[in-house]
Amino acid sequence: MRDRWRNSFSEWYAEQLDRAEILDVRYPVKGTYVWRPYGFRIRANVLKLIRQILDEAGHEEALFPLLIPEHEFAKEARHIAGFEDEVYWVTHGGRSELGVKLALRPTSETAMYPILALWIRSHADLPLKIYQVVNTFRYETKHTRPLIRMREITTFKEAHTAHASAEDAERQVQVAVECYRRFFDALGIPYIISRRPEWDKFPGAEYTIAFDTIFPDGRLLQIATVHNLGQNFSRTFEITFETPEGRQEYAYQTCYGISDRVIAALLALHGDDSGLCLMPEVAPLQVVVVPIWFKERKEEVDREAEAIVRELSCFRVHLDTRELRPGAKYYHWELRGVPLRVEIGPRDIENRQVTLVRRDTGERITVARSALRQEVERQLRSIGDALRERAWQEMRSMLREAGALEDIEKAVGERCVALAPWCGSKECDETIEAHAGVGVGGVMEAEPGRCVVCGRSTKHRGIVGRSY
Amino acid sequence: MRDRWRNSFSEWYAEQLDRAEILDVRYPVKGTYVWRPYGFRIRANVLKLIRQILDEAGHEEALFPLLIPEHEFAKEARHIAGFEDEVYWVTHGGRSELGVKLALRPTSETAMYPILALWIRSHADLPLKIYQVVNTFRYETKHTRPLIRMREITTFKEAHTAHASAEDAERQVQVAVECYRRFFDALGIPYIISRRPEWDKFPGAEYTIAFDTIFPDGRLLQIATVHNLGQNFSRTFEITFETPEGRQEYAYQTCYGISDRVIAALLALHGDDSGLCLMPEVAPLQVVVVPIWFKERKEEVDREAEAIVRELSCFRVHLDTRELRPGAKYYHWELRGVPLRVEIGPRDIENRQVTLVRRDTGERITVARSALRQEVERQLRSIGDALRERAWQEMRSMLREAGALEDIEKAVGERCVALAPWCGSKECDETIEAHAGVGVGGVMEAEPGRCVVCGRSTKHRGIVGRSY
Repeated sequence: MRDRWRNSFSEWYAEQLDRAEILDVRYPVKGTYVWRPYGFRIRANVLKLIRQILDEAGHEEALFPLLIPEHEFAKEARHIAGFEDEVYWVTHGGRSELGVKLALRPTSETAMYPILALWIRSHADLPLKIYQVVNTFRYETKHTRPLIRMREITTFKEAHTAHASAEDAERQVQVAVECYRRFFDALGIPYIISRRPEWDKFPGAEYTIAFDTIFPDGRLLQIATVHNLGQNFSRTFEITFETPEGRQEYAYQTCYGISDRVIAALLALHGDDSGLCLMPEVAPLQVVVVPIWFKERKEEVDREAEAIVRELSCFRVHLDTRELRPGAKYYHWELRGVPLRVEIGPRDIENRQVTLVRRDTGERITVARSALRQEVERQLRSIGDALRERAWQEMRSMLREAGALEDIEKAVGERCVALAPWCGSKECDETIEAHAGVGVGGVMEAEPGRCVVCGRSTKHRGIVGRSY
Repeated sequence: MRDRWRNSFSEWYAEQLDRAEILDVRYPVKGTYVWRPYGFRIRANVLKLIRQILDEAGHEEALFPLLIPEHEFAKEARHIAGFEDEVYWVTHGGRSELGVKLALRPTSETAMYPILALWIRSHADLPLKIYQVVNTFRYETKHTRPLIRMREITTFKEAHTAHASAEDAERQVQVAVECYRRFFDALGIPYIISRRPEWDKFPGAEYTIAFDTIFPDGRLLQIATVHNLGQNFSRTFEITFETPEGRQEYAYQTCYGISDRVIAALLALHGDDSGLCLMPEVAPLQVVVVPIWFKERKEEVDREAEAIVRELSCFRVHLDTRELRPGAKYYHWELRGVPLRVEIGPRDIENRQVTLVRRDTGERITVARSALRQEVERQLRSIGDALRERAWQEMRSMLREAGALEDIEKAVGERCVALAPWCGSKECDETIEAHAGVGVGGVMEAEPGRCVVCGRSTKHRGIVGRSY
């Protein structure tokens, strides 16, 4: 059942964060939240996955300071213009006023690049690929929302690379896109990859590629961005290298990041009216074993349940021995999204079998005891595939090809996202916004068509939808 | 050789952080530093170890916000008195002044406890044991030093527990001490466990237990603390629970923490004049394989080196194929502290053997090719044991029993730490300080003796030494 999930998504989402003990939203600073242990374990598994992907692609993890001196922060003019309204400033240490104001990083270009300028000397130091996972801060004036728009972004994974040529930087943009594809595919999060319009790119970038997903309420959520910085920052921060021919040249840079929003999407897209459905890949518990006790045979059932847990120890498995009715336990683990439940009672023992119950479909599967481990592995894989497939279908069902302005209006009005031929001009974007209430959020390559506003021929589709 | 290590420790330490690429100290905010990738991997391995120990002891990881509103921070009077001189304050968001000033956490009691008050309702919610690993901030006015005294403490692991009785909290203090013992033993870091004098305990605590180690320059370094908070904070933050009899009672709390100083000790205590000697437990690379090339047999050597790396894949192993002389490679990995080097050349292949070289002793060991994996495992264990043993001996050699004030003076003058019978009074501590330049840093239980100042009978030894 996904009625409430679909029709009252906002309430559903807030409710799950609370009931599944993901976050506590009662912390007394607006827009900042507490990760509870169960949520923290999901976060830890997601981070493990992205670290693995980045490490395999030749990145190294580092860690830069949080505090950025005002003079460094202000160096890149477009960059500061893009962030100055939302930067937190530390002005006092103890009882004294600081000589130099310190920004809490909203992102780390201006913290990292003065140091990269020291690390990079020659073409032999390139390419350089580092990343860090840190908390970053934005004084958001829009409505804050847990994991989606926060004043303390608790999980900001930002990668920064430097290259000896524009071509190599361009290739790295593709590598980054591939890393994120792999990451989102593993999490079963569907995405649209597009290029941001000029006026919406990262402050200081040449261009920005973005991953968006669509939430059940039809709103786009940006879940990753990849920026080609060209030589914009390297000129400002004097990041130069000696070429093999002995010339000094400015490095070519890229940067790309993801945040807590990935976890928001993971939780939001795979749920239903009974709660979360976690991807087996990152679920803190993949299997929960519930013993079905009958008075005189409790010991026998417990012994068998323990044997099952031992046998399933290659999975993240938990034996629930609390003094509660089985139904209460089912409910408890269902809303927390545990992918697979194993029930074991006297009758199962007699028949040398075990009952599996899938969280995603509710399907009950009777398995021969001897085939248990294999079947659990198969079912977990199948659940991952099914969740991924369902999420992609759901997203596709909210994407509408629009051939005219009215189609865009209609799509947005029906909580969908329109894909419309668009010439790329700001003027036509403004006309679209005047009609639909929102402008073009991203641009994709597509079959030739005619701009829905001016009729000029174009090979681009604009993505038009409400967004978070 | 440990001459320079011992006699110019301060320079030695700064040099290793740079040469082994642990930290970059050139970040333009005093007292904050950049973790470079190699250093970051040591840090990651240390964190993995402490997480494992805490998880096994029933703690759960969580994550609380960095920003603490002034009104919460100021609630516990002694606590704020202890920290107010070194708290950073955020006063502005964007261009506007904030209505409520926000402290950057110097430690998280005042961030966590309002929330624990919501989580804890009944005795069934207790004990509650959580921890987090975060960055914390102190506006240090003393001389800052990488990993030892920093304005951004990048690796602050703080655990917080709540209990239904004073006895249970007391037991938890012992559990925490045991966790840290295990942790420091695994890292080969020797320690002295003592109780801090009343005037030096954690602001707001009933009492504080501390772990100190001694650096090669004879200075004490506090590397962990465990605090019994009694009901001091629970009264302030209204953390109450319903007893089985239906009464409301304030919870009994403890908290305990470690920081980057653990990594400082790990690097400082196991080094020598050639650089770092990393404990195999946390070394980013445990084994480096260096092929010894002879022109005509390079391919053969490379094949064998690759086979060795495959065979050693259960360790953290690296094959160094750079176009450099073997000597340059030895030097490179020695200063980075890789515990074991494998050399493989044509003669080794002929003799079906491999040469191992230990970083700690420089010993060369010839091993039959067929016994390689077993021998590597044995040697890594032996290196860990040897480093631990050497560090304990070194620390013990700097501890002096002192029977009189002059003995203390002499010990401290000779860059050692004195253990002296002390009655516990502030007066006698002041006399000790007047003579030796430093007062009592910690108190241990010991055989009966007479206070070096007043002559009163006492079962306590005061620890007196210069400290960081």
